[in-house]
Amino acid sequence: MKRISLLVVGLLAAAAAHAQLQPAKQTPESSEQWFPVPRIVTPGKGLATVSGFTAPSDAIVLFDGKNLDSWVSAKDGNGAAPWKVADGILTVLPKSGDIQTKQAFGDYQLHIEWRTPAKVEGSSQGRGNSGIFMQGIYELQVLDSYNNVTYSNGQAGSIYKQTMPLVNASNGPGEWQTYDVVYTAPHFNKDGQMIIPPYITVIHNGVLIQNHTMIQGTTPYVGQPEINPHGRGPIKLQDHNNTTSFRNIWIREL
Amino acid sequence: MKRISLLVVGLLAAAAAHAQLQPAKQTPESSEQWFPVPRIVTPGKGLATVSGFTAPSDAIVLFDGKNLDSWVSAKDGNGAAPWKVADGILTVLPKSGDIQTKQAFGDYQLHIEWRTPAKVEGSSQGRGNSGIFMQGIYELQVLDSYNNVTYSNGQAGSIYKQTMPLVNASNGPGEWQTYDVVYTAPHFNKDGQMIIPPYITVIHNGVLIQNHTMIQGTTPYVGQPEINPHGRGPIKLQDHNNTTSFRNIWIREL
Amino acid sequence: MKRISLLVVGLLAAAAAHAQLQPAKQTPESSEQWFPVPRIVTPGKGLATVSGFTAPSDAIVLFDGKNLDSWVSAKDGNGAAPWKVADGILTVLPKSGDIQTKQAFGDYQLHIEWRTPAKVEGSSQGRGNSGIFMQGIYELQVLDSYNNVTYSNGQAGSIYKQTMPLVNASNGPGEWQTYDVVYTAPHFNKDGQMIIPPYITVIHNGVLIQNHTMIQGTTPYVGQPEINPHGRGPIKLQDHNNTTSFRNIWIREL
Amino acid sequence: MKRISLLVVGLLAAAAAHAQLQPAKQTPESSEQWFPVPRIVTPGKGLATVSGFTAPSDAIVLFDGKNLDSWVSAKDGNGAAPWKVADGILTVLPKSGDIQTKQAFGDYQLHIEWRTPAKVEGSSQGRGNSGIFMQGIYELQVLDSYNNVTYSNGQAGSIYKQTMPLVNASNGPGEWQTYDVVYTAPHFNKDGQMIIPPYITVIHNGVLIQNHTMIQGTTPYVGQPEINPHGRGPIKLQDHNNTTSFRNIWIREL
Repeated sequence: MKRISLLVVGLLAAAAAHAQLQPAKQTPESSEQWFPVPRIVTPGKGLATVSGFTAPSDAIVLFDGKNLDSWVSAKDGNGAAPWKVADGILTVLPKSGDIQTKQAFGDYQLHIEWRTPAKVEGSSQGRGNSGIFMQGIYELQVLDSYNNVTYSNGQAGSIYKQTMPLVNASNGPGEWQTYDVVYTAPHFNKDGQMIIPPYITVIHNGVLIQNHTMIQGTTPYVGQPEINPHGRGPIKLQDHNNTTSFRNIWIREL
Repeated sequence: MKRISLLVVGLLAAAAAHAQLQPAKQTPESSEQWFPVPRIVTPGKGLATVSGFTAPSDAIVLFDGKNLDSWVSAKDGNGAAPWKVADGILTVLPKSGDIQTKQAFGDYQLHIEWRTPAKVEGSSQGRGNSGIFMQGIYELQVLDSYNNVTYSNGQAGSIYKQTMPLVNASNGPGEWQTYDVVYTAPHFNKDGQMIIPPYITVIHNGVLIQNHTMIQGTTPYVGQPEINPHGRGPIKLQDHNNTTSFRNIWIREL
Repeated sequence: MKRISLLVVGLLAAAAAHAQLQPAKQTPESSEQWFPVPRIVTPGKGLATVSGFTAPSDAIVLFDGKNLDSWVSAKDGNGAAPWKVADGILTVLPKSGDIQTKQAFGDYQLHIEWRTPAKVEGSSQGRGNSGIFMQGIYELQVLDSYNNVTYSNGQAGSIYKQTMPLVNASNGPGEWQTYDVVYTAPHFNKDGQMIIPPYITVIHNGVLIQNHTMIQGTTPYVGQPEINPHGRGPIKLQDHNNTTSFRNIWIREL
Repeated sequence: MKRISLLVVGLLAAAAAHAQLQPAKQTPESSEQWFPVPRIVTPGKGLATVSGFTAPSDAIVLFDGKNLDSWVSAKDGNGAAPWKVADGILTVLPKSGDIQTKQAFGDYQLHIEWRTPAKVEGSSQGRGNSGIFMQGIYELQVLDSYNNVTYSNGQAGSIYKQTMPLVNASNGPGEWQTYDVVYTAPHFNKDGQMIIPPYITVIHNGVLIQNHTMIQGTTPYVGQPEINPHGRGPIKLQDHNNTTSFRNIWIREL
């Protein structure tokens, strides 16, 4: 009961503050966009089922199936990355926290393969949820979006709570999927404003889903995109409490 | 205590709705962005105080101080525009509704001058509020933002509830201000998605405040930007119940 | 001799005209750009060597190895496409002329695989030269650029005589190569100027080589890019007198 | 007949050079673009005839009519700027060389006023020719383009020998004209390629003539645009041997 009281006090304080022209409380739902629903496209067979692709010669291989030497825990950016590596596959260890690359990046081309659990559990945002954060900040959503209703700007391939994918090119649960990403970093001015915003292009299982999409700012679960100046940053993978897997991760600095 | 119960019920209801995967209620506050606060720039003297500029030879003069022949009521897009014309100035008639041009436009350069009431009444969004809607849909905010605290993506020069201006170049209440706008229209595909989004550049009182800003979608008071396909559209001016004035409005089709 | 005289008369006339401020003669070399030389990247093994990928479900398959039913001769846009189909492969029939799709396109994602002759003959622009024309107009260069010196804005992956590729990701002669292209069409105004230019992104053998590159205009062998308004247009493949081959061509309208 | 022989020899030499895969000689004419001819727009009266505008509060005033304290000779980037200041006006001293700002800039908004000689002398590129170089490198052309035939990508408001202005909004000889420029700087990668190209928007006498135009590279008199990595750079004004004048120059760092 005490907890409820504290919560309520907080809410009332926020409401009062609003009367004084301060930011008011936001809910998770307030940044959901449910329409249109991206049209379903079945990706070509082959691309997602073939393994063994190798990286271009100038790529930095971030995960080649063997270990997490290129990664650290994102909790402090320092400790060992706590996720599981087995059979050449990297899998989220639920509640262990996000992991991120040791190295920080600016403009890049990123290839990453991911797979949501074959056994479907949960629904909407609870199914195979993870995420890939550009420069550790801007989330490209990973989700099992195969026959799974959720808000459009939260489905697989969305810039989370900003821009839905052009189409839904998802493979099914337990199947490997690919993201091929082109990302250019934002440039900030002295005022902390974005003079050149970040842009992202994403090909999902061989199908274009984001084309030179401007990223508005951060991609929070609750609230509006925020603009927070930053320099180079790592690739961060999200622990969203689902056992989503990854493999064959490489990056080319542009 | 009753209030608390109601609040808690509301929160639980929202959670329940979410569990059913429906779009939940959004509040006006949920799309406000309060930080950063655009830095204040005092515009150069002269530009805003000189009247008598004439339009380029290929411009369509939308208001030359004489009448509203180029405008209609936005209620039905048909009836006479109900605002006041006096002394060469067009002024909002509160509660008469928005007005819009008879003609519809695609890509254009727009010049418009506006003035908020000299006598300051109200605060935040209640001070000299009006708006200029690109193609009748995307609002470039008009507001008395001179020493007036409000959310950054709602102040003068913002793409309403999307993108704050780079700086605050506002003149004071009762002073004329200029917007010079470059706008290119969006292109939609068969799915109703934006293949090419609208872009806008705005110079406020001679100072750049939006530079090739991508417009995400509609600019509602409550909720997320929506993507609704459309063709050419009018310039629409908003009746927000304040007696904001306009003059010297012309447009060049690009 | 008569022909020479006529030629000379023409040239002199042009020169005279120039003295009167008319366009002067241009040479093929005048639009070559030799520096920088794009850095060589060896593409990942696998992607180029695997056949049998299939197209996404919403793709229009332009060539599936069987016939040229989707193509016509580009000479008149009407007659049968004269190139050779054998063993699931489409090969240029030298001196038979360009071919183009029956269907015309606007914004699209294009996948195409190509192979220059295993036996190297000729050099520079004479080795495995062909081209893929966006909307029948803007050439994405096809060339054997493996250990083959030529001007940078004429090598494989260049927007011909405009923009060189970011890197040289070529496979060798006789090896299959892929282009994955994202293209958005230009929009012209009444004056015949480009209000929105065409943009192109190209991934060559899995490696980004053009990132949202603005296309300046036409891509002629001699002279500056020209701006000529047009609507939808076909995919055109070039007969440059070399027996370059193609397979697995599909397009998705965006 | 001798002339014909020489011509033929020249053509054969060019062909031979090409066979050796060397960059061939380029002529000034080879980068001229004569069509389309930008439509003539008469700018609004007032804007160009009013003097006494002052700069925004955050602007760096580069020339306020008094002296050249902010400028140096561009010959060595060090010596005193040799042009003439009289009656609040800065005028090119022919054959004294270009001048440039002491300060270097990245992204900016630039306001500059210029005037070609009232007495028309010369023609085409010889009439009131000067130029404003973004970051000391990319030329925005200054020319008397009032009833003056020249190549379109060389007239006033062109990105020299790259992109012609959307329209010709020139005032006449002896009249003041304004450029309002928004420029964002390029970003280069380790290979010396442009990952983010420079973009420029130009309003000429109140009329949009360049809208977020991508700059391809350098703007030479002879030859193709070149890509040469650089950091911040000055505003440079060109001595093209004509007594073109300037006044009221200010810049705002974005």
